[in-house]
Amino acid sequence: MTSTFRHVALIGKYHAPSAGAPSESASNALQRIAAHLRGLGREVVLDTQSAIYSGLSDYPSMDVDGLGRHCDLGLVVGGDGTMLGVSRHLARYGTPLIGINQGRLGFVTDIALDDFEATITPMLDGEYEEDERPLMQARVMRDGQCVFEALAMNDVVVNRGSTSGMVELRVEVGGRFVSNQRADGLIVATPTGSTAYALSAGGPMLHPSIPAWVMVPIAPHNLSNRPIVLSDAEEVMIEVVGGRDVSANFDMQSLASLQHGDRILVRRADHSVHFLHPKGWNYYATLRKKLGWNEGGT
Amino acid sequence: MTSTFRHVALIGKYHAPSAGAPSESASNALQRIAAHLRGLGREVVLDTQSAIYSGLSDYPSMDVDGLGRHCDLGLVVGGDGTMLGVSRHLARYGTPLIGINQGRLGFVTDIALDDFEATITPMLDGEYEEDERPLMQARVMRDGQCVFEALAMNDVVVNRGSTSGMVELRVEVGGRFVSNQRADGLIVATPTGSTAYALSAGGPMLHPSIPAWVMVPIAPHNLSNRPIVLSDAEEVMIEVVGGRDVSANFDMQSLASLQHGDRILVRRADHSVHFLHPKGWNYYATLRKKLGWNEGGT
Amino acid sequence: MTSTFRHVALIGKYHAPSAGAPSESASNALQRIAAHLRGLGREVVLDTQSAIYSGLSDYPSMDVDGLGRHCDLGLVVGGDGTMLGVSRHLARYGTPLIGINQGRLGFVTDIALDDFEATITPMLDGEYEEDERPLMQARVMRDGQCVFEALAMNDVVVNRGSTSGMVELRVEVGGRFVSNQRADGLIVATPTGSTAYALSAGGPMLHPSIPAWVMVPIAPHNLSNRPIVLSDAEEVMIEVVGGRDVSANFDMQSLASLQHGDRILVRRADHSVHFLHPKGWNYYATLRKKLGWNEGGT
Amino acid sequence: MTSTFRHVALIGKYHAPSAGAPSESASNALQRIAAHLRGLGREVVLDTQSAIYSGLSDYPSMDVDGLGRHCDLGLVVGGDGTMLGVSRHLARYGTPLIGINQGRLGFVTDIALDDFEATITPMLDGEYEEDERPLMQARVMRDGQCVFEALAMNDVVVNRGSTSGMVELRVEVGGRFVSNQRADGLIVATPTGSTAYALSAGGPMLHPSIPAWVMVPIAPHNLSNRPIVLSDAEEVMIEVVGGRDVSANFDMQSLASLQHGDRILVRRADHSVHFLHPKGWNYYATLRKKLGWNEGGT
Repeated sequence: MTSTFRHVALIGKYHAPSAGAPSESASNALQRIAAHLRGLGREVVLDTQSAIYSGLSDYPSMDVDGLGRHCDLGLVVGGDGTMLGVSRHLARYGTPLIGINQGRLGFVTDIALDDFEATITPMLDGEYEEDERPLMQARVMRDGQCVFEALAMNDVVVNRGSTSGMVELRVEVGGRFVSNQRADGLIVATPTGSTAYALSAGGPMLHPSIPAWVMVPIAPHNLSNRPIVLSDAEEVMIEVVGGRDVSANFDMQSLASLQHGDRILVRRADHSVHFLHPKGWNYYATLRKKLGWNEGGT
Repeated sequence: MTSTFRHVALIGKYHAPSAGAPSESASNALQRIAAHLRGLGREVVLDTQSAIYSGLSDYPSMDVDGLGRHCDLGLVVGGDGTMLGVSRHLARYGTPLIGINQGRLGFVTDIALDDFEATITPMLDGEYEEDERPLMQARVMRDGQCVFEALAMNDVVVNRGSTSGMVELRVEVGGRFVSNQRADGLIVATPTGSTAYALSAGGPMLHPSIPAWVMVPIAPHNLSNRPIVLSDAEEVMIEVVGGRDVSANFDMQSLASLQHGDRILVRRADHSVHFLHPKGWNYYATLRKKLGWNEGGT
Repeated sequence: MTSTFRHVALIGKYHAPSAGAPSESASNALQRIAAHLRGLGREVVLDTQSAIYSGLSDYPSMDVDGLGRHCDLGLVVGGDGTMLGVSRHLARYGTPLIGINQGRLGFVTDIALDDFEATITPMLDGEYEEDERPLMQARVMRDGQCVFEALAMNDVVVNRGSTSGMVELRVEVGGRFVSNQRADGLIVATPTGSTAYALSAGGPMLHPSIPAWVMVPIAPHNLSNRPIVLSDAEEVMIEVVGGRDVSANFDMQSLASLQHGDRILVRRADHSVHFLHPKGWNYYATLRKKLGWNEGGT
Repeated sequence: MTSTFRHVALIGKYHAPSAGAPSESASNALQRIAAHLRGLGREVVLDTQSAIYSGLSDYPSMDVDGLGRHCDLGLVVGGDGTMLGVSRHLARYGTPLIGINQGRLGFVTDIALDDFEATITPMLDGEYEEDERPLMQARVMRDGQCVFEALAMNDVVVNRGSTSGMVELRVEVGGRFVSNQRADGLIVATPTGSTAYALSAGGPMLHPSIPAWVMVPIAPHNLSNRPIVLSDAEEVMIEVVGGRDVSANFDMQSLASLQHGDRILVRRADHSVHFLHPKGWNYYATLRKKLGWNEGGT
């Protein structure tokens, strides 16, 4: 698929506006990118918050739904966390996304601000690699009612509180009993999330093309309780059977104080996210760089 | 899919005839199974070796190719190793397989000899669960020539000798460079093999429905070199770059003394294997039993 | 060392009296053990709580300090958790301890109630194996003041809350900087604790004779952040540098809501605990049994 | 302990002379170091091989035994492997050792050639940190005879051949049965070796002051078979019970083709090795640098 993008949403650090206004340099970055895009004859639309915090008043702005309906490309300025937050909000509109990173490059935000112009320009004309990522739709059910619902790009985590012992979780996949887990918690991660928290907990990496989740126990009591890769075509059900101060976290969107009998349901969302990368981009090169495989360790 | 099987291949411990004649009890088992099948009106055909070693002279026998062409079901008497060996030979004929185990039940040979009659009878009439498993086709290329080729149900392993240091392996997937591996060796396992050697080396389990291999380094020098799940739609290439006494092992079918520059190529075979299990069989129940998840560990 | 014990403290489930009165069978067990000891001519003294809850009125009772001063042996009826709780309280008195277990045998409570008489009788006359275990003394310092202090038989754990991200901890040993840890948390475990939570988090087992702690990160961000075995002769200092809802747990005795700058100090306690086991007891046999090493896994 | 060293052994890449003459730059390095030492008024004695290969004819040379008897300090030019080889040979003489490294600094060779003068000069006058490391004495016993014996600074490894299945090993410590191991192999490592191969196989790091070995299974069949830290005061016995092409490797000094019934015995050697480091050296700083703990991983 190649196409020329005309209407570009420019989105700053969308997910944590409470941290205050973007820094001077963040505003400068938005200004610089917007000017470059306009110079290329593209319409630039800011998200409402970036418009307010950056003070860029000579571009139109819209809320995220407006951006999704109006624009044919999203340009996200920030790190992986920002990108994942924007992804969840724009997934339903199918808007493809490009990430520009002011700091250390991320797994999915892999274009450095420094020389973004040379990289972005051909991408706007259709010269890019496409990288489709699945989303999870996750819910917490209590007494038959949905009490919490969210999308997750990385993972669904059910875990214990800081001063409590293990949780006990009953897991079913596609309606079939899998295991009772006694552990600090349980992670169900997408391929995207497989290089995040799940990796720290001992899980494998999943290439983004694999239609699967990986379920990783955190500090499991039973030493033979190991990560397992599950089809994303079936619903995963996690029931809280024991433990105190249990919480559910969907990409860190949290519901605390789960009760025994609560059920967390995870299924593949109807939409997926399309990240665009510069021509020649390659998933393995990102892994090598982020995980330091070139350095030879010790 | 359900069907009634009429022509049943009965296959004993196919893969290690050098260990001598089957034990008395093994012959008795074959005799008992054959009689039961004939009593149900099925044609029973023995594999040539089982016929010779068991002395069962009142049943026809064929070599494995004959069995593949003639029979619509294979009944394998032995453990997982025997079953995998038979699988590789019959894969091209598409013959579905049932495993009867005289000892401790395996991951894929899950019917106990003790009460096999009650279990097998409905399966012959089409009451079963089907369980499709992919096969790997693996080759060793040297100077452009294929010097070794075999199918593998479990895994392809490239590893060092017993008194040599690390191997160095260059890995590509789908023609794209993945990593240089310095380790004791490298495992590429199917979902079936993910619960065998790969699990011991720290890999995850893969549900059989996942169209993927898992690549697991053995004692890697770099601590961030972790298992990765790869699409089975792309060819994996492993080039021997360094190390002494390196060998390639395809389900323990081995080529020793690999040379620097040798390339091991792994792709999904054209055929897959169909295991049949009793109605109600469930992959997760097998995992729980084999890995002791019910026991609660410590 | 052998000796004959005359004054025996009999202690029931000491640590969780809030769970209500001991069950009928627990009272019966105490009654049975007390009668057996008296029949052997030993003085039996109950702990106050066991006396109240069991209704055994024909034996003297004392609080735990009284038991420590008066008795030359403690007989603990319960599981490992009960035993560790009693150990912490009696450590200062040097009272050796024997564990009788009504349920599944533990790592340190290894005498079954069923046939305790035959096992206990020779032990009272000095026929036993001695097993010395170190204790940790742990404190939380805030602004130069000690705000929490406790002994720990198993471990000191500093970890995050259920809906918060990673903690960041600065670790020093003997005044020398070791590492900044970004993880779910950090465990410092004794040899006794090395087979408990630390093992689940990926730590090694430490033989009880090793004068060392093992420090195990829980789901560390950096994949080369691995367990490290430290001398118990030096103080371990863990400073909370980042993270929310951080808590310190000393054998599950907890202080929640740690603040940035709080320092957890861990040193070897002045006293250690002496467990007594039946003649022929052997640490490795316990490991084999508890970890299922005889079963051959898969 | 501080002392002034007068007679300095200067030792080049001692362990692999078969690789041919040292490179030009290696000779230059020896020349430069020797001249500096002489300029400080020290006697410089070369090892015989370095003398031959470097062509430095204006310094006396001795074989390694002569160096051990005559010199009060050894200066080793090379990497960790060279240093460990020299250590094994000089251990009996108690000669302290300093490592100068021309390439990437190692765990124990931590002085860069570039500016060695400023670092070495005060060390020769007694300004240093001492770092004592235990050695293993390991033997292979067959039919009651010792058929192979060597010292090891890093580890004793018993492992399988490249095309054979698992080895089966029976382990005893201090005459007490520990476990039967079915695995690719088994590592018994010193604290020094705990950051080498044992770390790759999943073992913990041991601070050099811990009087212990760590036993690490390589790809164990049983998932609850985990690393265990053992007292170095007791002998470890590993008996070959099953498997083909089994070998014993003591710091890569190998005996191949072990037979069933062969016993590998490991005990602490009578001597240990004394490495000297620049004032302010600190074990943890070396770990941080070698394992990349400063880099923050992903």
